[in-house]
Amino acid sequence: MATALYDLTVPMFIRGLTVLSGLLDKGAAYATEKGIDPATLTGAQLIADMKPLTAQVQFACDTAKGTVTRIGELEPVAMADTEQTFEELQARIAKTIALLEAVPRERIDGREDATVVLKLPNGDMPFTGRSHVLTFSLPNFYFHLTTAYALLRQAGVPVGKSDFLGGV
Amino acid sequence: MATALYDLTVPMFIRGLTVLSGLLDKGAAYATEKGIDPATLTGAQLIADMKPLTAQVQFACDTAKGTVTRIGELEPVAMADTEQTFEELQARIAKTIALLEAVPRERIDGREDATVVLKLPNGDMPFTGRSHVLTFSLPNFYFHLTTAYALLRQAGVPVGKSDFLGGV
Repeated sequence: MATALYDLTVPMFIRGLTVLSGLLDKGAAYATEKGIDPATLTGAQLIADMKPLTAQVQFACDTAKGTVTRIGELEPVAMADTEQTFEELQARIAKTIALLEAVPRERIDGREDATVVLKLPNGDMPFTGRSHVLTFSLPNFYFHLTTAYALLRQAGVPVGKSDFLGGV
Repeated sequence: MATALYDLTVPMFIRGLTVLSGLLDKGAAYATEKGIDPATLTGAQLIADMKPLTAQVQFACDTAKGTVTRIGELEPVAMADTEQTFEELQARIAKTIALLEAVPRERIDGREDATVVLKLPNGDMPFTGRSHVLTFSLPNFYFHLTTAYALLRQAGVPVGKSDFLGGV
């Protein structure tokens, strides 16, 4: 049986955000253990003109939230990008997971061919529900998850591929 | 209409590998322009005990190839991990895309609930066709794509998010 759109979104995002939460836990524990200022980790960047770990977490959350909001035509829930600490990032993830858990399956399923518009500063990008998930949301979501992983890994946090894949 | 398993695999991988090929082209062009030894880029690592760019490309290709081989019960095609140069990495990607393009849709569709076993050095991991794609193949594929991007981006190659997302 083919795969419902809900199953390509809500559980995928919850799973990924749970993984991200676990990676951040390992980052916070590493900072404590090594006596490192946690802000060194939460502010870590791959290169000076790329966003830090805090923003990677915010973007991952927003990709998940934005996708279900657009596809399900749900009331947008704004979240200010003010998180700086590991605790605040964990709260952002928890809030996003709670929002995802509250999305009724029937708001997502059947929306594969619906028009979904991503509004960007430089114009509107039209998708179908399916193309939005497959060509934008999933690649973008994993981009920010992997970048968060890369930042922690490069800083010496003992995370490995099995932490990224989660309980497969 | 729900999404067929073929559409969650073959076109997703071809799209991602095409993006990866474009990123490598930008890397090669940057090396030429700046007079950098291309091996500095193909051998770049995020940290000393993490695999270099060459391996990230090999792993992305193998995730795609392995997924369709396992789900479609296709004859395995071995590819030695000997690539060192941008040209060799491009050839590996092209060979993998050709293999993907030759996968008949009917070998993948309908295999959602089939047993699919991932053989690892430390034991077998059983999945269904669907869970294999959603919880292993797609996250793992984008992990290696994003890590390749991160390595090029950190080395100064002018790549941006739109290069990663491709023609959305």
